[in-house]
Amino acid sequence: MMEFEESGIGEECGVFGCVAAGEWPTQLEVAQILSLGLVALQHRGQESAGFVTCNGASPPTYTTHKGMGLVSTAFPPEALQKLRYGNLGICHTRYSTTGISELQNCQPFVVDTLHGKIAVAHNGELVNAHALRKKVMRHGVGLSTSSDSELITQLLALTPPMEELDAPDWVARIKNLMMETPTSYSLLVMFKDVIYAVRDPYGNRPLCIGRLVPVSKLHSSGDGEEDTEGWVVSSESFFFTIIVLPGEIVQISRHGIKTLSVVPRPEGDLPAFCIFEYVYFARPDSIFEGQMVYTVRQRCGRQLAIEAPTDADVVSTVPESATPAALGYAQQSGLPYIEVLCKNRYVGRTFIQPNTRLRQLGVAKKFGALTDNFAGKRVVLIDDSIVRGNTISPIIKLLKEAGATEVHIRVASPPIRYPCYMGINIPTKEELIANKPEFQDIAGYIGADSVEYLSVEGLVSAVQEGVNSILNDKVISSSNKSSKRVGHCTACLTGKYPVELEW
Amino acid sequence: MMEFEESGIGEECGVFGCVAAGEWPTQLEVAQILSLGLVALQHRGQESAGFVTCNGASPPTYTTHKGMGLVSTAFPPEALQKLRYGNLGICHTRYSTTGISELQNCQPFVVDTLHGKIAVAHNGELVNAHALRKKVMRHGVGLSTSSDSELITQLLALTPPMEELDAPDWVARIKNLMMETPTSYSLLVMFKDVIYAVRDPYGNRPLCIGRLVPVSKLHSSGDGEEDTEGWVVSSESFFFTIIVLPGEIVQISRHGIKTLSVVPRPEGDLPAFCIFEYVYFARPDSIFEGQMVYTVRQRCGRQLAIEAPTDADVVSTVPESATPAALGYAQQSGLPYIEVLCKNRYVGRTFIQPNTRLRQLGVAKKFGALTDNFAGKRVVLIDDSIVRGNTISPIIKLLKEAGATEVHIRVASPPIRYPCYMGINIPTKEELIANKPEFQDIAGYIGADSVEYLSVEGLVSAVQEGVNSILNDKVISSSNKSSKRVGHCTACLTGKYPVELEW
Amino acid sequence: MMEFEESGIGEECGVFGCVAAGEWPTQLEVAQILSLGLVALQHRGQESAGFVTCNGASPPTYTTHKGMGLVSTAFPPEALQKLRYGNLGICHTRYSTTGISELQNCQPFVVDTLHGKIAVAHNGELVNAHALRKKVMRHGVGLSTSSDSELITQLLALTPPMEELDAPDWVARIKNLMMETPTSYSLLVMFKDVIYAVRDPYGNRPLCIGRLVPVSKLHSSGDGEEDTEGWVVSSESFFFTIIVLPGEIVQISRHGIKTLSVVPRPEGDLPAFCIFEYVYFARPDSIFEGQMVYTVRQRCGRQLAIEAPTDADVVSTVPESATPAALGYAQQSGLPYIEVLCKNRYVGRTFIQPNTRLRQLGVAKKFGALTDNFAGKRVVLIDDSIVRGNTISPIIKLLKEAGATEVHIRVASPPIRYPCYMGINIPTKEELIANKPEFQDIAGYIGADSVEYLSVEGLVSAVQEGVNSILNDKVISSSNKSSKRVGHCTACLTGKYPVELEW
Amino acid sequence: MMEFEESGIGEECGVFGCVAAGEWPTQLEVAQILSLGLVALQHRGQESAGFVTCNGASPPTYTTHKGMGLVSTAFPPEALQKLRYGNLGICHTRYSTTGISELQNCQPFVVDTLHGKIAVAHNGELVNAHALRKKVMRHGVGLSTSSDSELITQLLALTPPMEELDAPDWVARIKNLMMETPTSYSLLVMFKDVIYAVRDPYGNRPLCIGRLVPVSKLHSSGDGEEDTEGWVVSSESFFFTIIVLPGEIVQISRHGIKTLSVVPRPEGDLPAFCIFEYVYFARPDSIFEGQMVYTVRQRCGRQLAIEAPTDADVVSTVPESATPAALGYAQQSGLPYIEVLCKNRYVGRTFIQPNTRLRQLGVAKKFGALTDNFAGKRVVLIDDSIVRGNTISPIIKLLKEAGATEVHIRVASPPIRYPCYMGINIPTKEELIANKPEFQDIAGYIGADSVEYLSVEGLVSAVQEGVNSILNDKVISSSNKSSKRVGHCTACLTGKYPVELEW
Repeated sequence: MMEFEESGIGEECGVFGCVAAGEWPTQLEVAQILSLGLVALQHRGQESAGFVTCNGASPPTYTTHKGMGLVSTAFPPEALQKLRYGNLGICHTRYSTTGISELQNCQPFVVDTLHGKIAVAHNGELVNAHALRKKVMRHGVGLSTSSDSELITQLLALTPPMEELDAPDWVARIKNLMMETPTSYSLLVMFKDVIYAVRDPYGNRPLCIGRLVPVSKLHSSGDGEEDTEGWVVSSESFFFTIIVLPGEIVQISRHGIKTLSVVPRPEGDLPAFCIFEYVYFARPDSIFEGQMVYTVRQRCGRQLAIEAPTDADVVSTVPESATPAALGYAQQSGLPYIEVLCKNRYVGRTFIQPNTRLRQLGVAKKFGALTDNFAGKRVVLIDDSIVRGNTISPIIKLLKEAGATEVHIRVASPPIRYPCYMGINIPTKEELIANKPEFQDIAGYIGADSVEYLSVEGLVSAVQEGVNSILNDKVISSSNKSSKRVGHCTACLTGKYPVELEW
Repeated sequence: MMEFEESGIGEECGVFGCVAAGEWPTQLEVAQILSLGLVALQHRGQESAGFVTCNGASPPTYTTHKGMGLVSTAFPPEALQKLRYGNLGICHTRYSTTGISELQNCQPFVVDTLHGKIAVAHNGELVNAHALRKKVMRHGVGLSTSSDSELITQLLALTPPMEELDAPDWVARIKNLMMETPTSYSLLVMFKDVIYAVRDPYGNRPLCIGRLVPVSKLHSSGDGEEDTEGWVVSSESFFFTIIVLPGEIVQISRHGIKTLSVVPRPEGDLPAFCIFEYVYFARPDSIFEGQMVYTVRQRCGRQLAIEAPTDADVVSTVPESATPAALGYAQQSGLPYIEVLCKNRYVGRTFIQPNTRLRQLGVAKKFGALTDNFAGKRVVLIDDSIVRGNTISPIIKLLKEAGATEVHIRVASPPIRYPCYMGINIPTKEELIANKPEFQDIAGYIGADSVEYLSVEGLVSAVQEGVNSILNDKVISSSNKSSKRVGHCTACLTGKYPVELEW
Repeated sequence: MMEFEESGIGEECGVFGCVAAGEWPTQLEVAQILSLGLVALQHRGQESAGFVTCNGASPPTYTTHKGMGLVSTAFPPEALQKLRYGNLGICHTRYSTTGISELQNCQPFVVDTLHGKIAVAHNGELVNAHALRKKVMRHGVGLSTSSDSELITQLLALTPPMEELDAPDWVARIKNLMMETPTSYSLLVMFKDVIYAVRDPYGNRPLCIGRLVPVSKLHSSGDGEEDTEGWVVSSESFFFTIIVLPGEIVQISRHGIKTLSVVPRPEGDLPAFCIFEYVYFARPDSIFEGQMVYTVRQRCGRQLAIEAPTDADVVSTVPESATPAALGYAQQSGLPYIEVLCKNRYVGRTFIQPNTRLRQLGVAKKFGALTDNFAGKRVVLIDDSIVRGNTISPIIKLLKEAGATEVHIRVASPPIRYPCYMGINIPTKEELIANKPEFQDIAGYIGADSVEYLSVEGLVSAVQEGVNSILNDKVISSSNKSSKRVGHCTACLTGKYPVELEW
Repeated sequence: MMEFEESGIGEECGVFGCVAAGEWPTQLEVAQILSLGLVALQHRGQESAGFVTCNGASPPTYTTHKGMGLVSTAFPPEALQKLRYGNLGICHTRYSTTGISELQNCQPFVVDTLHGKIAVAHNGELVNAHALRKKVMRHGVGLSTSSDSELITQLLALTPPMEELDAPDWVARIKNLMMETPTSYSLLVMFKDVIYAVRDPYGNRPLCIGRLVPVSKLHSSGDGEEDTEGWVVSSESFFFTIIVLPGEIVQISRHGIKTLSVVPRPEGDLPAFCIFEYVYFARPDSIFEGQMVYTVRQRCGRQLAIEAPTDADVVSTVPESATPAALGYAQQSGLPYIEVLCKNRYVGRTFIQPNTRLRQLGVAKKFGALTDNFAGKRVVLIDDSIVRGNTISPIIKLLKEAGATEVHIRVASPPIRYPCYMGINIPTKEELIANKPEFQDIAGYIGADSVEYLSVEGLVSAVQEGVNSILNDKVISSSNKSSKRVGHCTACLTGKYPVELEW
């Protein structure tokens, strides 16, 4: 179930940007749009939030606000007030992977260069960050944080050598950066009056662009520029479905969007979009590669019913993230779908003390058993993933105490076995249930009557069935247009990384 | 949908208490149990939280902590630390009905009397509070708050006249109080080493008692006192199902629970348990009158399908509270159940500014449309209630923009038309959609293809079908044991109040 | 030296009130005036601050704000904003004597009575509080705090019996209260559109009234009512010098001030104004009994030079409170006055950990030695009082290390030996240095070359020399107008309490 | 008087460092020492505070904490807890000169370089900062703040080119830096297990080193290393008197202190120690150039009495900073010294609203008039400086209203007329009273009977009279040892800057 704090698995971040269209100063409340965007991406990171807005003038004025915690905590009304004069802006929400969750590591990063300030927000993790840090430092640059975002910013400033030109060639600098590091990043680079939206050649992290239309024009079919109030760019799609392609550099200005360059992958390499975006991270209403995440999860449930059928009376879900898979499983299996658990949305980490007795009471309080729905019945309980195995166990106990005669666990994704070096926080190999001796008898270990996982092949086929391959990769020669150039990163499940890792 | 902030309808409070069994000082972490209990009742009030613990010694030491906001905010670890020496305690969470949400109105109220301190926590609203305040003040008592809880506490201290006895007769005082005010209250009165749990003769507000059993003994069938770690008393049931009956005064001590008295209703009057506990307030896993709230809601959905069938393709819910009714509707109607909305649990009140444009964006961000599930289909959307009509409208617009060909609203409760004087906060008569001219064409007003409500009779029958009448009313002569002495308060729907209101 | 946190001796509180003159709503910013008044009284209590303002209408609206800590912390701008509609108001700052420094004990107390709300702020401590609490509780009133202020408020409401009159006789009630408790209190009672300023018959705690004059009229000699912007009442005098007399009840309304009654002392009793207000508590610029506190302190220094001359080179002070006495000592003795210590005003309690090493460093950092001024010299160091003896010791060490050849301590008040039951917090008898065996050789104990204290007689004569006895006691028959009816409470020095204490 | 908030003149910062002597891990509580040191320097900056501690191991671990406000606010106990494992550390307190008082500009700055992390704390302002920023950015480095400290850190990392050596030559890098920027800086550079203490060749900002001795050994005359618990380095001296000389680089390690290099000034240039450290900034007990600041201020008072005698009755001070000068004036003139004002130390900026009426009340409340001391007398009031003229005016009015027959202002420093580019925040030229037309009749403007300032020559002679020139400048050839190589920066008074300014 999608509870980062418990599973220990987490996305690194979400990025969001907005550029007002038309005349400036804009009437569009850019800071408000950014805050709504960041709330919409809050599930991708709850540790800190940062905003930078810019008036886009010559010379430009940048305004920054960063804070720890949820957007609603980190951005009191005064902060929004302070930021409100922006005509464009970028923001970032962060799930700390390292434990160093200090304010100074918060993105976006703003640095002053010979040509003025640039701001960078980054989702992902550079696979060769270590080598790049050395390179930058050998050049004589001191790095003040451990953040990849600062590293990217300094790399952008460093090569090619800075000259006192009127118009610095940021696109060339971004391309240089992309040559130096293959993956993973979805970047927003703001300079004066434009945002550059950049996705790595493997397309590992998602990035989408959308158009803000006046409410009154929402129903109009016209696509006229005159109806556009602004442009937004975001880690996830919400309403809008223009996907930034792997390797693409898109310039967003008040005049519209424009692809400036597409950096190719090495010959033969497939894209490597993170498959866990579908399984776990993204909102169910997000659209990636032309398909809705909810639909993929439902297909995973169906596939799971085929791979791991159960002799039982009812199918249910660990609310809320496993529900699409559970409904898919029910549809495929023909078993009735019911609810067995209700969730207390006020239960947080605060009161859960390291005391077994109270922890058990705590879990009991997080979920209530809807006893009458399943007493005397055999339950198939669908979960979206089991990472460490320590949260499903008390749920099974709860259901059995409340009268379930059998509880069969079906997991709508394969077991995680390997670390991710591309921006996902995964517990250490030792903590992963799939690598523990207990995994041999996982059903016994967690108290279930049976446990089965979706296969890697099953997951991949459920995902790839609906991919619109055109969206996935613009750089295809005319000859192989028909062939599906589809690929996804399954490194955490298979140990096969999209690029060779250098250390 | 269960969003107090938007519907404007709200429960006043939840009460919770705990007494450790066996030898004192207890090993049981009473303050922790209280905090878990209050988190479990958090849906009944988010404005403030208060705890009082007592060591139960002679003379007793009381420790109090109160704070604004959610339990997790109001009770930092230091506060729990401070409270931890309690062998018994009571707590309270509050939904302010009056706007005066200052700390000093927070319950429980503790006052020092000639016989020592008593603490009172109260759920409900005294129908004759105004007259009682006058009476107390005429006696020369100054009241420092507008809280009914302080009023109750002073009434308990006032009559009969205080004498310097060794053992004050609190039960007589509680009975006196009950004679003076018929409803509505579920009270916890803590004095030294006992808690008195009291429910008004009409049983308007719920109250339940439960037993804390060591985890290791949960499965043992034995009911032996020796297995009991403590007693809890709560507005809602969770695991436990001993209901405090209308008019009952139960003493909870470390030696167990004991009914001290049952104050009868006037001849001929029926009980008047608040029917909105089933419809709206309570957790779905709570058990009242022998039935699970979820099951009642499901029956309401079934009844709604009978009363208001729809020619449509799919049935869905406004998550999360309407889901049982939606599943009931689907089962009865034979239409398939799907999900059409996903909810962003991070959206709060903070960023929603009073600006139409941004409010609309805000609602859009609170719910995402699961487009692929319903595009091109006719949707029946079940909601649990429509109070002011201002939240369902943007949802309908969202679904239509995302491709629903028709949206039919079916509401699993009747329209609210009257104020409540028994502890429920209901918008003014003028704000209630059912009293507005627009209600004549509500479908047109909110943009739906049709709107239908459950009838009052349908709701009452769905509720009463499963009531265990024995539980509802212990005070029945042997002669009419067979007759169902069942009654529920439907005043907000019908204007028929259980007692005559004096002003 | 005046460091409450270290000496352990502290005043209980300060009270302040303001009534705008002329037409209401007033242009006078009453809440601002109150906050300035409270800051001016901040030295009398730093634990909490509370304000109540009232619009004075029929029926009146009262607005309350209370907070922990200094006025500047407890009253953020929002709070002042909230209070700003008052036409009159009272406020209170508190030095907790009991350790129970919770918000609910903060004054002023506001209670609703049959005739409407009254608000009470109190400086002092009722010598018979225990008996009065019993009396109130026997009447059936529950007391929600341990505060004398709540007790006073309930006593005012209780007797004589409340009747539903148009105009309640608060003056009669205040007189009743004064009959029941002889001392110590300076009270402000606010009801609707007036403030009653009340001082106990012994005049133990100070209270003064002043007139607010427009800045432009400050120099005008006219005393015309038309120049008055409002009236203030305060524990200390600042600019204004109308003293509320012992036993007096003064009504302050927008029309001016009026003595309503003077409650006499028992025949033969003298006034008993707290002598420590002169020695220690009050601001040096305050005026009591017609004389400036600074001048009294200077006289104490002179008297000390007569009683305890020293063979030394220079006289100095422990800054800042002992400076007037040191200057007096220098003038009388003819020795030159120099500074030997500079004080770091940023040193607070925060970093002083219970570790001898660091505590010593801490004290060192609080005072810096002005070495060049005294190296090689014999220093007479004047302190205003030595309560526990634990702060003067490191100062002596510091001076000696910095080169003083001798350090002689002269204390400008007698040793404290007895507890105070009238509102002053004094360490337990055991903690007082004067009651410890070490007092026999106090010089050796604290490392001084000699230590001498001012005598009780010396203190009393230094104080009484300048008293304007008319101001001290209005109730004098024409016959004894010439006799000095002067008296001061010296209970903490002599054990002679002004009234017999009942327990 | 020393009230930065009002005069608008302010020091930029204070730096402090500590290295534990002997075996590591040390028993010395380095973080506590740092916090005490920073509190002692709090008068040099109240806007923010930052600490970095280091365990000194290979590789070292650095721990950082920064916060806004006073040390006591910025460093809650948790922060000290977090920092406590340091064996050495540096810290910084800041008075923002630019208005950009965000957390990210707080010092010390820590950056990671090829050789590991270095931390830098800086007091002063680089006169050629603008050119240096350009130089660094031209090299391709992005600067994330406007802080000179970050600039210094990046300059240290940049030249000479970084090589992957075992032992980086930080001293060479520091010398390079010193070649590039002549003034003004007192720097602490921490790397692994040493702190480099650096003072610019002109010695514009102060810096001192001291030895921590166990309390038990304070009196021992021995200077043995074995008695040393640690070393401290600080902007001001307190107890210790080892001055870091102009141009000197001192290495502080657990083995002791060692001068590594002394960078000379250009031939013919004198030192340029900021003369306002004596007049205004430093604590009175600090020792610079072999003399105590208090003594210098007293000499200024004496000189002022010679230059500007007054026909008056008494001499007094604007507390607290002008007191030494006032005592000096009294001694020289033979007039008696008295106190005329008492100060309320609780008055802060909070309640002083931009409203003339309340501002006047506010000033009145900050100072109370000790009326009896001066009524009917002619007062000479000594102030240490008059910068904008807006605070002395209400004080004069207060004294006159309270009965002073004449008030003559004597200022113990010359008028400020020019901006400072070396780290002192001075109001704009237009705001300085000395540059306003009103200065022609300043006495009339501020309401005094006469106003006179100390002359520049008078100030310089009062300062230089006590300078130990050896301490001021170690780099003197044997031949001119007898000549006094003394110089002070008086740029803000005379417009003569120690180095030519490049823009």
